[in-house]
Amino acid sequence: MIDIERKFLVNGPIPEGEDTPIQEGYLSRNPERTVRIRTRKDKANISVKGKISADGLSRYEFKQEISMEDALNLLKICEPGVIEKTRRAIKWGEHTIKVDIFHGKYDGLVIAEVELEDPDQPFEKPEWLGEEVTGNLKYYNSNLT
Amino acid sequence: MIDIERKFLVNGPIPEGEDTPIQEGYLSRNPERTVRIRTRKDKANISVKGKISADGLSRYEFKQEISMEDALNLLKICEPGVIEKTRRAIKWGEHTIKVDIFHGKYDGLVIAEVELEDPDQPFEKPEWLGEEVTGNLKYYNSNLT
Repeated sequence: MIDIERKFLVNGPIPEGEDTPIQEGYLSRNPERTVRIRTRKDKANISVKGKISADGLSRYEFKQEISMEDALNLLKICEPGVIEKTRRAIKWGEHTIKVDIFHGKYDGLVIAEVELEDPDQPFEKPEWLGEEVTGNLKYYNSNLT
Repeated sequence: MIDIERKFLVNGPIPEGEDTPIQEGYLSRNPERTVRIRTRKDKANISVKGKISADGLSRYEFKQEISMEDALNLLKICEPGVIEKTRRAIKWGEHTIKVDIFHGKYDGLVIAEVELEDPDQPFEKPEWLGEEVTGNLKYYNSNLT
């Protein structure tokens, strides 16, 4: 099963939701074996992803929790471009819209993401969402450097 | 404190000792943030090393145990040059000599290592040790690819 994620820029005042601070850094951005450090509130993990399979459907993933202290030290030696953002989860009808509000170098960038069960599932875009940027690699995590 | 490790090639029949099978692969060999997967008998870990400090004395290191199943999957996506070797630990007087017997691509390569407490500590080289290769980067792990 693949998750269908549609991504949007954000126009207008963002509704209230549950905020989670996130930091993300890459020890390697090589698409054959990306190594990512992530903190999320008071938890942290290291994850490794293999390359996307020839049929585009699957990707090996390893993820393990690590201590916050280790994560903060590891973020210091990550490749340049450690991301700090606040993720706001907003209930919207039957969906949860996740809005990433970037800080630091990307201050001002706000990207919303909604996960659909299949590409044809209807999704009525609220007014505060702007241009759809699904598939525009510029807005994908590992390309924000 | 730095460990002083002297490395030698091996000439003669290797004495008996305690054998440990080891596999090592790199998710990244970038010297600013190497990421290594290692299995050692029935244990496995992931480790990350930062770059060597300007004074050459220290290097940030993170190490965490992972499951053998995860390690074997991660070794499959490591950079080419996963090493398989048997490490034999041999008691020799007051020292323990570690002999790495390589398999696979490096079949035939045997490297012995002895750790000294300081560079001037005397070490009487047994007959079965050959040429000293301390400092010869060709024989260091991350360069065996």
